[in-house]
Amino acid sequence: MFDSSGAIPAVLEAERNGRAAAATDNAVMSMTDFHSWFHARTRANRFQVDRIPFADLAGWDFDPDTGNLVHDSGRFFSIEGLRVRTDRPWAGEWSQPIIVQPEIGVLGILVKRIDGVLHCLMQAKMEPGNINGLQISPTVQATRSNYMKVHGGAGTKYLEYFRPDSRGRVLFDGLQSEQGSWFLHKRNRNIVVETEDDVPLEEDFCWLTLGQIRRLLLLDHMVNMDSRTVLACIPPALTGPNAQDTGDDSFTRAVLRSLSGHGRAVCDPGTILSWLTEMRSRQELVQRRVSLRHVAEDGWRFGVDVIDHRDGKYFDVIAVAVQASNREVAAWTQPLVAPKQPGLLALLVKRIGGTLHALVQARSDAGMLNIAELTATVHCQPGNYVDVPAEHRPRYLDYALAAPASRVRLDVLHSEEGGRFYHAQNRYLVIEVEPDFAEPDDRYLWTTLHQLTSLLPHSNYLTVELRSLMASMRSLTQRL
Amino acid sequence: MFDSSGAIPAVLEAERNGRAAAATDNAVMSMTDFHSWFHARTRANRFQVDRIPFADLAGWDFDPDTGNLVHDSGRFFSIEGLRVRTDRPWAGEWSQPIIVQPEIGVLGILVKRIDGVLHCLMQAKMEPGNINGLQISPTVQATRSNYMKVHGGAGTKYLEYFRPDSRGRVLFDGLQSEQGSWFLHKRNRNIVVETEDDVPLEEDFCWLTLGQIRRLLLLDHMVNMDSRTVLACIPPALTGPNAQDTGDDSFTRAVLRSLSGHGRAVCDPGTILSWLTEMRSRQELVQRRVSLRHVAEDGWRFGVDVIDHRDGKYFDVIAVAVQASNREVAAWTQPLVAPKQPGLLALLVKRIGGTLHALVQARSDAGMLNIAELTATVHCQPGNYVDVPAEHRPRYLDYALAAPASRVRLDVLHSEEGGRFYHAQNRYLVIEVEPDFAEPDDRYLWTTLHQLTSLLPHSNYLTVELRSLMASMRSLTQRL
Repeated sequence: MFDSSGAIPAVLEAERNGRAAAATDNAVMSMTDFHSWFHARTRANRFQVDRIPFADLAGWDFDPDTGNLVHDSGRFFSIEGLRVRTDRPWAGEWSQPIIVQPEIGVLGILVKRIDGVLHCLMQAKMEPGNINGLQISPTVQATRSNYMKVHGGAGTKYLEYFRPDSRGRVLFDGLQSEQGSWFLHKRNRNIVVETEDDVPLEEDFCWLTLGQIRRLLLLDHMVNMDSRTVLACIPPALTGPNAQDTGDDSFTRAVLRSLSGHGRAVCDPGTILSWLTEMRSRQELVQRRVSLRHVAEDGWRFGVDVIDHRDGKYFDVIAVAVQASNREVAAWTQPLVAPKQPGLLALLVKRIGGTLHALVQARSDAGMLNIAELTATVHCQPGNYVDVPAEHRPRYLDYALAAPASRVRLDVLHSEEGGRFYHAQNRYLVIEVEPDFAEPDDRYLWTTLHQLTSLLPHSNYLTVELRSLMASMRSLTQRL
Repeated sequence: MFDSSGAIPAVLEAERNGRAAAATDNAVMSMTDFHSWFHARTRANRFQVDRIPFADLAGWDFDPDTGNLVHDSGRFFSIEGLRVRTDRPWAGEWSQPIIVQPEIGVLGILVKRIDGVLHCLMQAKMEPGNINGLQISPTVQATRSNYMKVHGGAGTKYLEYFRPDSRGRVLFDGLQSEQGSWFLHKRNRNIVVETEDDVPLEEDFCWLTLGQIRRLLLLDHMVNMDSRTVLACIPPALTGPNAQDTGDDSFTRAVLRSLSGHGRAVCDPGTILSWLTEMRSRQELVQRRVSLRHVAEDGWRFGVDVIDHRDGKYFDVIAVAVQASNREVAAWTQPLVAPKQPGLLALLVKRIGGTLHALVQARSDAGMLNIAELTATVHCQPGNYVDVPAEHRPRYLDYALAAPASRVRLDVLHSEEGGRFYHAQNRYLVIEVEPDFAEPDDRYLWTTLHQLTSLLPHSNYLTVELRSLMASMRSLTQRL
């Protein structure tokens, strides 16, 4: 279905010819050289992804007892059923297929100061669900099984830098949640390690400064989800630039100031935690795993090559055959979750008392581990709400869709994890609201960007989508 | 089975005649008056708890499809089965009955400055599983259903003080875990609210200072688990006493100093979080809910009045009939989990570089939500290990059991939650180890007391047992 053509997307061309030439950031590789390198990696690595019937999956079967879609080895992941009960007034109870993957993988970025400038070791990596083949990935994406092998072995390059016995300085190390709509209780370990070793540069890897990565974050479908979540976790103090570097763009200064923790916040940290505790206590989220075949009761249909919902909404479960030249295994088949339409993540922001605040909500998704997490002001797949009565449409959805360009501070399309999701893309928007924006009700809260990043060392506070937004927002501080 | 006799236990007599008379702490009630009041409450409130066959439970039945023990209303809790897979070398895979109660209750303490001194509104409350009838409870123990009622109503006294619209100053508000061995993913909201209102004093309630509660924490089975967990969460800065108050007992000074955050810690906070992340990534804990009747495959036997394990270990599930004069409902029946023997929680502590450190481990229990939590150096039911090969006995268990009295800083028996557990008691020990104590392996970590309390605002870091120890340890700072 997808075949790498080797052509450079137009947006990359614009980046190459425009901002990219302006500065080198003291980077080991200029942006022009990066794009040439990335283009060369795209040409060098052939891959093909084709949809196939479930019956053609090799090693995957529908379990005869439960109907769950499982791998013969019991490893990787499975597609099972989840029954959810909430106290929402609209569609409060449902069942759905869900990805179950109880083990914790490692998403690691290795960093190193080169000529005094922090560089990240990034990878050009294909995932079968990627809309465009290669994207920029962390140094390491490893399963628990790979991580637990005593000898790093052939499997995962650079994994040894993330083991307790051979680590450099740990800059961040915590468990972070992934998409609660599609995963049951899924988390990965996000880890950033600084090394002083001489690190050999393997094929498909390159050193990029944080400034360069921020520029890439302004491009559609360039920096993958695994990178974005780890990048969001790097403490802002380490990543610069500081306020002096940014010239006279006042929104940029406001973002930096809000990230830095200077300036007065509307709520103190205890109030934010108490509000979230109230939301988690008040919202009901009762999850019960059921056999995949049980979701048929709620309108899910089982075809030869797709499991989909009769309303044409939500997502499909499909199967693909993959051929790739630069992966550990050259060919394989696997199931993927394919959303029916793009999602929208819109963060409304406002300067209050001179400090930029973001309007967050506590969102409860089907597969969440901790009832509710903080997320963007609007977080939904708008297509799921086309026929829903106005009073049950997500608050601020129509506001965000109608926002004038003059108030839009960020507008970028990013892909979600291509190892599990097929062509899953979300539009990430940051909208600065007008000064007389009506005060939200108590399901929403104004926080500074620093208050949000302060919660990242602890698990299950910010959704992966809000973390993507936080990473992308930092790119606004990199105007070159 | 238990009948309140009205007699004052000997340990209370000692407290009345000994330390209690020494100081009044500027309290509204002297300790002598407290004990008289508590004794009067015991005499005034009659209650009786009798074991009954499961068939005599009213409103509870074994579901014909699953064998789960459930309430007809679908409310309260249920006893179901849990299948657990870990990567432990000994008994790494098992199934067991488990209490399932997906909703979050409220454990709230209302505090008020009276003549400048912080007082807590505490309750003398009976729970059917209590070994001794009445214990000191928080102001409020409420279910989600009670909390969600718009009008506080007759159900739960003082609940209105803990609602968002009528709160005073929130001193703490977070979700805390409960016993992972017996509960599936259970948490309660721990909340402390300070009011300036005139609060009417209801029967069975009294105002106690934190100093008075700390003295009561030195008594066996006096302060219930719900109180202990909330008390542990009160920020140390609010609770005093400070170092000057404590005279010349050097261990007391060491506890206060370690709680205060002064003095050098062996690990920085980032290292603690990274170590715990490593433990959570490394330890395997795969939980699968199964029908209660499935646990028969692993040696659980179903009798007319007990579900027990053929090895005579772990716990029983039993049924009781309760009659009580001071509860919302005067008589009811319910299942309870009855541990086969007391547990042991021993915290080894050591002064390192002049700062008191506690030796904690990351423990994974069957029903934990977040894979592993920090707990005491020794955390087990020793009786479960009588026939286990020496190399698989819990590390430091024999060390703790053999510790000379001269090194024991705290030794107290506390009851666990009497609303779910029958005569569940744990021995809580704090042992100061000798200066040449051998360095532990990497499954253990030295932390200051301040570092542990700093994690409490976030969920699922400290087990309820470690929180009990932390609350009790503060009582060592109250020598009068």
